[in-house]
Amino acid sequence: MMVDAGLQYVRIGEFAWSSYEPGRGRFTWEWLDRVVDILADAGLEIILGTPTATPPTWLAIERPEILGVGPDGRRRAYGSRRHTCPAPPYREESARIVELLVERYGSHQAITAWQVDNEPGNHDSARCWCDRCQEAFIAWLASRFDTIGELNEAWGTAFWSQTYPSFGAVRLPIPTMTAHNPALLLAHRRFASQRAVAALTEQYDIIRHGSPGRDITTNVYLGDLDVDAHALAALGGISSFDNYPHGKSGPMDTAFTLDLATGAAGRAWVMEQQPGPINWTPTNPPVPPNQVRVWAWQAALHGIERLLFFRWRAARHGQEQYHSGLLRHDGTPDRGFDEVHQLATELAGFSIRPDKSVALLYSYEDAWALEIDPHRAGLRHADLVLAAYTAARRLGFEVDVVAPNGRLSGYDLVVAPALHLVTAERIASIDSALRAGTTVVLGPRSLMKDAEDAWWPHPTPAHLTERLGSRVVESLSQTMDVTVGATPAGPWTDVLSEGGEVLARYGGGTYLDGAPAAVRNGPLVYFGASSEAAWLDLLAHLTGAAPHPAHLEVFSEQIIDHAALQVSDRR
Amino acid sequence: MMVDAGLQYVRIGEFAWSSYEPGRGRFTWEWLDRVVDILADAGLEIILGTPTATPPTWLAIERPEILGVGPDGRRRAYGSRRHTCPAPPYREESARIVELLVERYGSHQAITAWQVDNEPGNHDSARCWCDRCQEAFIAWLASRFDTIGELNEAWGTAFWSQTYPSFGAVRLPIPTMTAHNPALLLAHRRFASQRAVAALTEQYDIIRHGSPGRDITTNVYLGDLDVDAHALAALGGISSFDNYPHGKSGPMDTAFTLDLATGAAGRAWVMEQQPGPINWTPTNPPVPPNQVRVWAWQAALHGIERLLFFRWRAARHGQEQYHSGLLRHDGTPDRGFDEVHQLATELAGFSIRPDKSVALLYSYEDAWALEIDPHRAGLRHADLVLAAYTAARRLGFEVDVVAPNGRLSGYDLVVAPALHLVTAERIASIDSALRAGTTVVLGPRSLMKDAEDAWWPHPTPAHLTERLGSRVVESLSQTMDVTVGATPAGPWTDVLSEGGEVLARYGGGTYLDGAPAAVRNGPLVYFGASSEAAWLDLLAHLTGAAPHPAHLEVFSEQIIDHAALQVSDRR
Amino acid sequence: MMVDAGLQYVRIGEFAWSSYEPGRGRFTWEWLDRVVDILADAGLEIILGTPTATPPTWLAIERPEILGVGPDGRRRAYGSRRHTCPAPPYREESARIVELLVERYGSHQAITAWQVDNEPGNHDSARCWCDRCQEAFIAWLASRFDTIGELNEAWGTAFWSQTYPSFGAVRLPIPTMTAHNPALLLAHRRFASQRAVAALTEQYDIIRHGSPGRDITTNVYLGDLDVDAHALAALGGISSFDNYPHGKSGPMDTAFTLDLATGAAGRAWVMEQQPGPINWTPTNPPVPPNQVRVWAWQAALHGIERLLFFRWRAARHGQEQYHSGLLRHDGTPDRGFDEVHQLATELAGFSIRPDKSVALLYSYEDAWALEIDPHRAGLRHADLVLAAYTAARRLGFEVDVVAPNGRLSGYDLVVAPALHLVTAERIASIDSALRAGTTVVLGPRSLMKDAEDAWWPHPTPAHLTERLGSRVVESLSQTMDVTVGATPAGPWTDVLSEGGEVLARYGGGTYLDGAPAAVRNGPLVYFGASSEAAWLDLLAHLTGAAPHPAHLEVFSEQIIDHAALQVSDRR
Repeated sequence: MMVDAGLQYVRIGEFAWSSYEPGRGRFTWEWLDRVVDILADAGLEIILGTPTATPPTWLAIERPEILGVGPDGRRRAYGSRRHTCPAPPYREESARIVELLVERYGSHQAITAWQVDNEPGNHDSARCWCDRCQEAFIAWLASRFDTIGELNEAWGTAFWSQTYPSFGAVRLPIPTMTAHNPALLLAHRRFASQRAVAALTEQYDIIRHGSPGRDITTNVYLGDLDVDAHALAALGGISSFDNYPHGKSGPMDTAFTLDLATGAAGRAWVMEQQPGPINWTPTNPPVPPNQVRVWAWQAALHGIERLLFFRWRAARHGQEQYHSGLLRHDGTPDRGFDEVHQLATELAGFSIRPDKSVALLYSYEDAWALEIDPHRAGLRHADLVLAAYTAARRLGFEVDVVAPNGRLSGYDLVVAPALHLVTAERIASIDSALRAGTTVVLGPRSLMKDAEDAWWPHPTPAHLTERLGSRVVESLSQTMDVTVGATPAGPWTDVLSEGGEVLARYGGGTYLDGAPAAVRNGPLVYFGASSEAAWLDLLAHLTGAAPHPAHLEVFSEQIIDHAALQVSDRR
Repeated sequence: MMVDAGLQYVRIGEFAWSSYEPGRGRFTWEWLDRVVDILADAGLEIILGTPTATPPTWLAIERPEILGVGPDGRRRAYGSRRHTCPAPPYREESARIVELLVERYGSHQAITAWQVDNEPGNHDSARCWCDRCQEAFIAWLASRFDTIGELNEAWGTAFWSQTYPSFGAVRLPIPTMTAHNPALLLAHRRFASQRAVAALTEQYDIIRHGSPGRDITTNVYLGDLDVDAHALAALGGISSFDNYPHGKSGPMDTAFTLDLATGAAGRAWVMEQQPGPINWTPTNPPVPPNQVRVWAWQAALHGIERLLFFRWRAARHGQEQYHSGLLRHDGTPDRGFDEVHQLATELAGFSIRPDKSVALLYSYEDAWALEIDPHRAGLRHADLVLAAYTAARRLGFEVDVVAPNGRLSGYDLVVAPALHLVTAERIASIDSALRAGTTVVLGPRSLMKDAEDAWWPHPTPAHLTERLGSRVVESLSQTMDVTVGATPAGPWTDVLSEGGEVLARYGGGTYLDGAPAAVRNGPLVYFGASSEAAWLDLLAHLTGAAPHPAHLEVFSEQIIDHAALQVSDRR
Repeated sequence: MMVDAGLQYVRIGEFAWSSYEPGRGRFTWEWLDRVVDILADAGLEIILGTPTATPPTWLAIERPEILGVGPDGRRRAYGSRRHTCPAPPYREESARIVELLVERYGSHQAITAWQVDNEPGNHDSARCWCDRCQEAFIAWLASRFDTIGELNEAWGTAFWSQTYPSFGAVRLPIPTMTAHNPALLLAHRRFASQRAVAALTEQYDIIRHGSPGRDITTNVYLGDLDVDAHALAALGGISSFDNYPHGKSGPMDTAFTLDLATGAAGRAWVMEQQPGPINWTPTNPPVPPNQVRVWAWQAALHGIERLLFFRWRAARHGQEQYHSGLLRHDGTPDRGFDEVHQLATELAGFSIRPDKSVALLYSYEDAWALEIDPHRAGLRHADLVLAAYTAARRLGFEVDVVAPNGRLSGYDLVVAPALHLVTAERIASIDSALRAGTTVVLGPRSLMKDAEDAWWPHPTPAHLTERLGSRVVESLSQTMDVTVGATPAGPWTDVLSEGGEVLARYGGGTYLDGAPAAVRNGPLVYFGASSEAAWLDLLAHLTGAAPHPAHLEVFSEQIIDHAALQVSDRR
């Protein structure tokens, strides 16, 4: 049936540990051998998953130290998934099972790729509060700072008298009377993400050695923030991810996710494509006919290399019974199956590598810092970024969503809607782009905090005020009806000082009337507003492009009409 | 004053343990003797409560193991109520005090009935996470499944690799990274409910032996789901319950509760009738004049045998000070007192046993399964059931709300708005009704999961698709403006395949336009929509009855106008 | 810069413990010596804070028993502030550091005042659940009641069978199945507040002895309820507090806070005045030009003696980075700086001691009782009080917000909008006012519970029904559209019996139509309604005064127009 549907790749085994090792050292590989052979005989390529997202219950009982510990001090219960601790005990067990998998299947011809783990960080699982992780955090800090005095200085622990007498005095953040120092929380996010990546690296190394020539990747849910997906994508050079449009705010958010994935590595795979209704959003709405086809087209046009559906058949058991598959629970084809069949024909041989003239800068570190201290509840890095992305996309630009440390000089336009933290690499990167004449637009709150999340001690945007000829004089949580021209400015606004060329001013009848909202000086632009509409006005002004209707997504060769659920040729 | 008000029955003692046993083996029965004699001398019948809903603090200190343990692993604190564990230690103490009560009062002529415990399961109290309950759960599972392999198979624990190596590996569900397997959660609900019933059975046995000839019953809050009230009602053949209309969504919900109670056993008593404003709803609104009288009339017309008010006098102390009584805190008659006086005359000798032609099927197991995995937040078994009940009631039918396993062939119409789980008894029950020519209407999600909450492996409604000539092809969480005819279809809709006689089709301008919403084949009807209005249309079509206005409740002899707070003769 | 801005006072050191004692017995006073000398040389007066709101981490590690324990049984984590336990260990450490501070700086001429601790009770920090506090609570109860029987009687613990066999059986309230006895909760609030005050008293004594002639005060956030601010103000005769208008519901709420502060002691200082946007409200809105100036004027006109801004410079590090200062993070003057400069001129020599003819009674005990058992979620003592306060203020009265036990006969009018509990002192106080001919107006729920939060056993308002010639017959959580005249009555209404002179009746078309809403008998008035508008009507009727527009705040010599952000002379 898979072949009939036109499928080429099958991912298997990502949660199957207890099925082939039901007790320590007791293996029942035969069923998996058979599955692999059946798929191979049918001409399907297999992506074999390592099962470390779901350790078996016997292992959790035998070695409870593999279970993570929550901020409440309790060991995480088995019974669902991702209840693991990233410390050596679980890494040992992970290495053991992956070595056995590689030994048995590493040279099978049909296995052309490996998936390491699944959705690391999902369910906020990357952070563990066990004693081993506490010790590792201290060691990590000691490697990052020369002395505890240096840490105290950088974090400003003297505030509220919380100076640490030694590295050993730093505690993983558990609930306290009021907020923790944001510097501690940011360090914890960095540590946990790096530690998760390091743990997975061990699996990559085992597979690389034992199953040479295969692709290796890790599937992530882009939207989770616990683990830096850029770092994960770098491990194998393939950015794999879930594409669940119903978990996103709309087609532009899905588009953004696709561009975030393709921007993270040279190759990008959709490892899980929604094939119909899903089970984990607030409403889990219906999926009309043709929608699955449009989602697949959208992914293809954004440059996705492979697209797999999750799942083949709806599960009769467990927590995801309301998640549809290409087949129904009873094994009969569901609507998605028929659309996949059509897609297999339509997309046969289709391959596109869009040429993108606009770069949008995205970094997990900024997302962490803004989540930790958002000025007011609800300010999200994701919203700041999506507003600017949508504006660019509606103007017809195909957008490269990239980390802010790379080479930026090849783009016509660089948009940095939420470049919050200051690092030397970022400054250098922007500097080289500006020197190449590339227009660089910074959004509100840009370059405002140092790398330890302390407010920049000089005027902001850091290092760029002279070049800009202007500075931020107020960073506001906006509750007034402030506009830029006639357009609402959005909930977060930076007010600029006079200087440079003022491209736009605030209006709306408040005390901000007439204050600079956007300032340009040569190729450098600082934009203080945050709404999608304000970004649209600004980018239209800067580029001369005219906006398309909100329901259309325009590519070089095609247009997707998301309202009508149609894909059409551009001309 | 009670006699003057026209009262006949008095319930006493349900929370009085510490008042007659202030320390182990130290008894102060005299005050209770006196109360009993005073009431007896006044000619009042006494319902004597066993005090096990509220163990005294001295007992909790002496034997902390009688206290339940929460999912957080902490022993429940004393200081309120229902903080007990259903394991042997508390059962021993319960038996001890009940034996003493029965010994002292069991043959008193005025004590004509016993109430065992009070509101079991209230405050989600039936589930305990202590070590004894953990062991008992394992033993219960081992009695339900022959092998752990059978359990693993039935629950599909291989999903997410959570196969249990032994019964001993199954843990009571504590918070985990994401959801637990619904099969585990359903088993836990069943276990806890059965265990609560078993614990109370011991008290029934003691009373039956020591106080023969008396009625025995247990008061429940219908709305709580922790303990199966059908099983409780079966213990003594009397269904006793709280009637707090302000805790319900409206008069029809109150009517449903009354019919659920009368349907649960041969006799039904309102053990606690709201006598004025109460203290535990979100708003605790005022109660206008005449309202208490209408509530009592409503109960009487639904076939309630006895009706007691809670409480006689508003309490000066403790957690329920804002709960009104027939008397005020200061002992003066409150408005409820006067209405009760009038009621005593009006209802003297009134007794009705309504003859009900419509059966509505209701089961706690379905409620648990839908609460555990509701497709989307907010889908409640109670809402699905109430929509259909209200429709039937507005068409003038008096409705028997009954468990789905009984004899159904005596009814003209059987409505099963949320018969979620498949069991052999249910199928047999429906089958016999259909063979008797009784029209059986199944609502959305009917017969869709097996008894362990796994999706049925064949087309649904299970066992009935051939007879129906149709099957469910989509079970949707509906977020579109879908209608049945001109009527909104409701938030949950099942789409049927063509076949049988299509009674109604979906409309409203979505991709569902024209798809079958209701299919009939002989006496069997499947209805995919869930709104009250859609049920009203369907049942009107099936029965030819016309709806009454929403504020009227029509009985064979009387009409209650809930809007005008009046009771009137029908003709 | 401070002197240039016109500042006179500087508060320092309130969170500086770890900066001058970075390890036990290791002191680095030199920096503080230097700060003190610099400020002194500039002619500034110093308020030196004791640092006990923020114990250093080394101390928490060395003596973990200084950390408070939450209701979850876990020791509170260090890393933020106010994580202390009020038991002897932390008191010892507090005394030690305060003695050292006093020894070093107590006779410095520039140090003219001390601040003891900071914001006690903030973050709900006054209640600790450690074993020492458990024991202290028992001892406190044993000192309050002669026998456990007396406590049981007063608290009505027989309700739900929770009679205590001994004082030792009383537990600090941890989460339980449903609510705790309100009497236990009220006792816990009283105990915790008194214990916090007792702990701080030790610091006052040390300072009084070692730094004679200096003012001593404690800064509180008025809005916190954990510690009785009246008792705190009494310690040093100076009521110091935070003035954060953005944390209040509007200018009238700010005005109320100012009058609560001035009413609490002979002298009142704003220790922290908002100098621009802050960081801890839900939205943290912008602060327009001139607003800081208006806030300072408002404080001055309410009789504030000193006003200090928090903070001098916005903090680069830690949890309050978005809290503005007079200087920006980079040290440049922010807008507040310039307004302070103007204020220094405008307010030079300004001093006012308003002569207030209206007293409004306010007590923390009532606030606790209403918070513990609010009849319905959302009934807040603060709202009841603010409605009446605002009405009085809009009629042009300057209002003394005072504790209900003082001499009231000097006022023209006494308003008691939420005098919930009955005590002999309160009754005597009201009695003397009435005998002096002062009009006393009681609001809904007045004198309804005894001192242990049990409902009064006789008609209410307790002790006053005969004098009133009327009683409360219903205390309603109002969900109907009830009016007093044409004015909405508000969410909580007491219905009175006929008697006395009925000043107003309920209307609006419900069963309450025509029932007395306000009754007068001589100088005593009971008012059953709770909305600001209803209070405005009543007080206007009683006094003959006419209301000013809502945006104006009228003082004897000045008017503040809050809408236009202007201060103007009255004539």
